Amino acid sequence: MRVLVYGAGQLAQMMYLAGVPLGIDVQAVDVKDDTVVHPVSKRPLEQNLVQAIESSDALTVEFEHVPERLLEQAAKTDKLMPSMDAILVGADRVREKHLLERFSIPNCPHRIVTHLDQLDDCVKTLGDKLIIKASRDGYDGYGQWRLKDASQLESIKDALSGLDLEAVPLVVEKMLQFERELSLIGVRSRSGEIKVYPLAENLHHNGQLHVSVAPASQVSEALAEQAQQIFTTLAEGMQYVGVLAVEMFQCGEELLVNELAPRVHNSGHWSLSGAHTSQFENHLRALVGLPLGDTRALSPSAMINVIGCSTFSRDLLSIPGCHLHWYGKSVREKRKMGHINVTADSYAQLGEKLHKLSGYVPTEYFPELEKEADRLLTFK
Amino acid sequence: MRVLVYGAGQLAQMMYLAGVPLGIDVQAVDVKDDTVVHPVSKRPLEQNLVQAIESSDALTVEFEHVPERLLEQAAKTDKLMPSMDAILVGADRVREKHLLERFSIPNCPHRIVTHLDQLDDCVKTLGDKLIIKASRDGYDGYGQWRLKDASQLESIKDALSGLDLEAVPLVVEKMLQFERELSLIGVRSRSGEIKVYPLAENLHHNGQLHVSVAPASQVSEALAEQAQQIFTTLAEGMQYVGVLAVEMFQCGEELLVNELAPRVHNSGHWSLSGAHTSQFENHLRALVGLPLGDTRALSPSAMINVIGCSTFSRDLLSIPGCHLHWYGKSVREKRKMGHINVTADSYAQLGEKLHKLSGYVPTEYFPELEKEADRLLTFK
Repeated sequence: MRVLVYGAGQLAQMMYLAGVPLGIDVQAVDVKDDTVVHPVSKRPLEQNLVQAIESSDALTVEFEHVPERLLEQAAKTDKLMPSMDAILVGADRVREKHLLERFSIPNCPHRIVTHLDQLDDCVKTLGDKLIIKASRDGYDGYGQWRLKDASQLESIKDALSGLDLEAVPLVVEKMLQFERELSLIGVRSRSGEIKVYPLAENLHHNGQLHVSVAPASQVSEALAEQAQQIFTTLAEGMQYVGVLAVEMFQCGEELLVNELAPRVHNSGHWSLSGAHTSQFENHLRALVGLPLGDTRALSPSAMINVIGCSTFSRDLLSIPGCHLHWYGKSVREKRKMGHINVTADSYAQLGEKLHKLSGYVPTEYFPELEKEADRLLTFK
Repeated sequence: MRVLVYGAGQLAQMMYLAGVPLGIDVQAVDVKDDTVVHPVSKRPLEQNLVQAIESSDALTVEFEHVPERLLEQAAKTDKLMPSMDAILVGADRVREKHLLERFSIPNCPHRIVTHLDQLDDCVKTLGDKLIIKASRDGYDGYGQWRLKDASQLESIKDALSGLDLEAVPLVVEKMLQFERELSLIGVRSRSGEIKVYPLAENLHHNGQLHVSVAPASQVSEALAEQAQQIFTTLAEGMQYVGVLAVEMFQCGEELLVNELAPRVHNSGHWSLSGAHTSQFENHLRALVGLPLGDTRALSPSAMINVIGCSTFSRDLLSIPGCHLHWYGKSVREKRKMGHINVTADSYAQLGEKLHKLSGYVPTEYFPELEKEADRLLTFK
């Protein structure tokens, strides 16, 4: 069996690694030039894109910003999973908000803005603490602006004045007080089977995910059910096939959906060592019609992104339960180079291991690590 | 970093899959024609063998029957791990017996036979229940003969009469009453660090491994220590680097070494889901000088070989904790096509899962499965 992935980065690579044992050959499309490449070596394969589409059992994406002409070509085959609509929801905050409203999923109070004058109205209805997001092409903190009080309104308008808001509207959200960000990774198969992973707790820094801990600590049964219900509503509503990531803010005992990612997701990488079945394996199982694997956690685990640096002591692997996942890319500022998974018998032990880990890495690139280690140590 | 593996079968493939996350590029040598190939696709890579040796940080083997001219070429580089001597020990039962004697490792009473007349002497000293093994090129039950009583001696001599025993001597062993076969997978790194996995219990059928259960049930601390001591003596004595598999018979509370395999081993495949670190990852870590990973078991687990068949219901993946590892080969009688790993919370639950599994596969190809399921169920 063959699965073709649009995008040839680390997510395609990890799908490939999960595919081989299942007898599934995963190939990748470099969307810059439509070449079909090996997901690990990135070397061009013999087939062109049309032949690869033809010979594949399923087509999927590793990121939502795949050029629409490619998505349209893929959608014509009936092999694209998730659907083009679901992918575009992940690529466009306006579509995303419409979807959440349509299924009555709690999310941040917001307005869609297509003209800068509407910002005044936003301040009136949502207050003067706002997050302004470009509806498309924003990621990892890019394409976002913060209004901290009404006095900043004019300077923000200046900053936004060059944008074509008719073409790419803004989504303006009320800045909420929330306790933490949680994400739910779930999967729905072609036959409609649904499984969800335990919630992960995510720590960001400058808009980028740095650390995920799963299962998230202190999750009540009610909260877990709420998350599962949100996932089920969305996945069934969209007739979704594959892994879907739902990022949420926890405000008291309520979850508000912040963002959807129609694909395997960074906050699910912990599942490679921390769960019975990884998100990559389950994504492939879903696509080719295999039964889904057990999504339960094996033990508390953490995923630490290695961002913008490649020089650290590989002796970190001496920490028991510590595994490196290297993406094989050249170093660039803010670039995700790899991640480190750590499993432990308890949160406190996980905290100890993260403390040890911070001794092996340049701490300026791991600003959340010590803090999270300290927090986990309080679970003694 | 790069590791070159002599042999391009499933073991090289699983080393490749373990290497990518570590940033180690594993390439394979097809020893039939000395081509350097991708360990999964088996497609030839651009480099020839000399170039591949040159560009690799370590050279290793996936089987012990690598042509000696290739081993000699590899040994000249000082990158071959384990050493040529260690590899040849696995390929030659006479060398193996000499090694065991040299390190005073308990093993089956035996004689080396270079002339058929010596068989009479064997019967006198070892008794008339004997296993006769070709010292080279035997595997999976090939190249073995059994003498059940003295009356069979002449017919056995007839059967052996065509062999050149001066070139390939026989190893004649006393047929022992033993409780079970256990194997120890251990690993020694370039820096001399040693770690061993829990013992696995192996079930054979017609000379082929069918099922391994790990950790083996009912292993006393003394027995585990004995096994670990045997491993340490051998690994340090040989200055061994990499994974070494030691097959042993348990006779009461004594372990007798039956066979050594200087490589990752079928009876260690359970470690892919059942241990913190797989034998493949640890083999690579050892070769490139990384700290070794945790070898402890996560839970009771079983490894079931899929031999000589490829048609079975993939719905077996609906069993929680069940993972398929497919090797991508064409079907042939007695050929290992893949294996299935199953993990469970207890031996009894493992037994239940193996019972379920037997409902999804053609039982004639899995002659040990039901029996082992029944045995495990007695641990309730």
